[in-house]
Amino acid sequence: MKTFNICLEEFNELVSKKLFDQQEPRSLYEPIDYILSLGGKRIRPASLMAVCDFYSGSRQNAINAALAIEIFHNFTLLHDDIMDNASLRRGQKTVHEEFNTNTAILSGDVMFVKSIEYFTHYSADFLVPILKVFNQTAIEVCEGQSLDMDFEVRDDVNITEYIQMITFKTSVLLAACLQIGGIIGSASEEDQFHLYEFGKNLGIAFQIQDDILDTFGEQVNVGKRAGGDILQNKKTYLYLKAMELADPKLKNELLAWFNEVGPTEKEEEKINSVKKIFNTLVVQEWANQLKEAYRDLAISHIEPLKLKDHQKEELRSFADYLIARNF
Amino acid sequence: MKTFNICLEEFNELVSKKLFDQQEPRSLYEPIDYILSLGGKRIRPASLMAVCDFYSGSRQNAINAALAIEIFHNFTLLHDDIMDNASLRRGQKTVHEEFNTNTAILSGDVMFVKSIEYFTHYSADFLVPILKVFNQTAIEVCEGQSLDMDFEVRDDVNITEYIQMITFKTSVLLAACLQIGGIIGSASEEDQFHLYEFGKNLGIAFQIQDDILDTFGEQVNVGKRAGGDILQNKKTYLYLKAMELADPKLKNELLAWFNEVGPTEKEEEKINSVKKIFNTLVVQEWANQLKEAYRDLAISHIEPLKLKDHQKEELRSFADYLIARNF
Repeated sequence: MKTFNICLEEFNELVSKKLFDQQEPRSLYEPIDYILSLGGKRIRPASLMAVCDFYSGSRQNAINAALAIEIFHNFTLLHDDIMDNASLRRGQKTVHEEFNTNTAILSGDVMFVKSIEYFTHYSADFLVPILKVFNQTAIEVCEGQSLDMDFEVRDDVNITEYIQMITFKTSVLLAACLQIGGIIGSASEEDQFHLYEFGKNLGIAFQIQDDILDTFGEQVNVGKRAGGDILQNKKTYLYLKAMELADPKLKNELLAWFNEVGPTEKEEEKINSVKKIFNTLVVQEWANQLKEAYRDLAISHIEPLKLKDHQKEELRSFADYLIARNF
Repeated sequence: MKTFNICLEEFNELVSKKLFDQQEPRSLYEPIDYILSLGGKRIRPASLMAVCDFYSGSRQNAINAALAIEIFHNFTLLHDDIMDNASLRRGQKTVHEEFNTNTAILSGDVMFVKSIEYFTHYSADFLVPILKVFNQTAIEVCEGQSLDMDFEVRDDVNITEYIQMITFKTSVLLAACLQIGGIIGSASEEDQFHLYEFGKNLGIAFQIQDDILDTFGEQVNVGKRAGGDILQNKKTYLYLKAMELADPKLKNELLAWFNEVGPTEKEEEKINSVKKIFNTLVVQEWANQLKEAYRDLAISHIEPLKLKDHQKEELRSFADYLIARNF
């Protein structure tokens, strides 16, 4: 993880200087520095830079793409928070709470333009393939969010559709980061393919783990509530698998809980009852197995890469780091 | 206007076939075809295509850029309508009314990605300069909207700031259309500059006329209410000039009306009283003079273009058409 950590440190250092501090109008640009200041894991920009470094020996070339991706990612968080009516992001007020909804919509919009602008610092040889990957990814991220919203009001979502949704909403952006890092590092098209598939499958494993941690994690994500998915009636892998495995009686019980928008005093009861059903059906184990399968699939794309052994080792550590995380 | 009209017809024909009819998820893409089906004047894509035709003799090369621009423009309308809480657009329900706000935010976002995607159909020689113009324009459009929102709660806006705001919010996109048409037609950089300046100044004249028509127009824009700017307390050129010219008594009277969020039965009284103040100060004439000045400035950029006389004549007719319009 040496290269990754160096990249992460350099990226954090860069973003800690407010990027949009000097830009007017302030009401448009201040929210951008605000959301960037909330931090986050910055796995995406750091992995993009690290991959570029593996191929070209230079992290610096990847800085603009890393900024583009991080700003794009935060733009999606900003708009998602409006749509989810979320009041907290990483333990702090969301942008529409700290400022207002109109500002949040508009600052989000300009963040998207800024991310394209950062990409245009690359010469045409790099810009054209980068934009091809990035556009496709940005479209899929929107489609993933749209599917997620559709699923909220559908009661016939199956696991295949769920995997498709999280692939678009979460995984393709990590995949794109790794491929774009490869593009800027002049990796072969074959290597770019494997980098993309590594990132995509790792992203899916990561999201399944996120579902598990939200319900069963000892240490829950900062700024998120324990059992939050259950309280929000979210159709996670755990829920969908439980519905698939449950007998009619248990299914009705689960449905009853998930149709409820319960009062506050019943929240603990709801979380505990749903967890009990999940435990009865051993869905955590099913989820773990699926997570491992996607992690293994991800890792299978490391070996074919034309990289040095220690670099491949670092990609494996990166996968372990992401999947073993409990933050 | 022959070329312009042919381009307009071709573009309308293209958009009348629903562009996103086959794309999933429907909840994401249906609103795009919906807003595009509401029509609009399509001055931007038609002028882009016409300029490209003037230089290269081909309208077809400009189709993708024309679509990109029209989709971008409609994305801004869609998000603006959410921010303005507008229920009607071109006499029909706005997207957030017809669907819902979350859908409107997300469909708007994907429209922006789609506009970039349409541009990526061009080879690098064209794509790089197009993106440079387009990104700068998209940023300015967001900044213009931000300034417009800031102005709503400020009482010290001056006319210079107002011109800056409408330049960003409205004019630069027309300017960008003409320049991008020039880029795709392989116009010289000097011609691109003049095309941009022609579009920018024409756009400012157009917006000032829009202010005049909203208050004094016989035939008001379809889907908009007569005197709507006055009822919304909008700081248009007419208002700002009136505030500049008014004596303390009249100024207070105007301020009193513009601080009022009046009940429905007083609306006619408000419109008539404010119009009376505007008439006393002859602000319509001031606005007309400023409009003419910007139109003349726009037209001054036609002569230096390396185009044939009949093409220059068509650009002059285009300016007349835009400025004389009462639709």
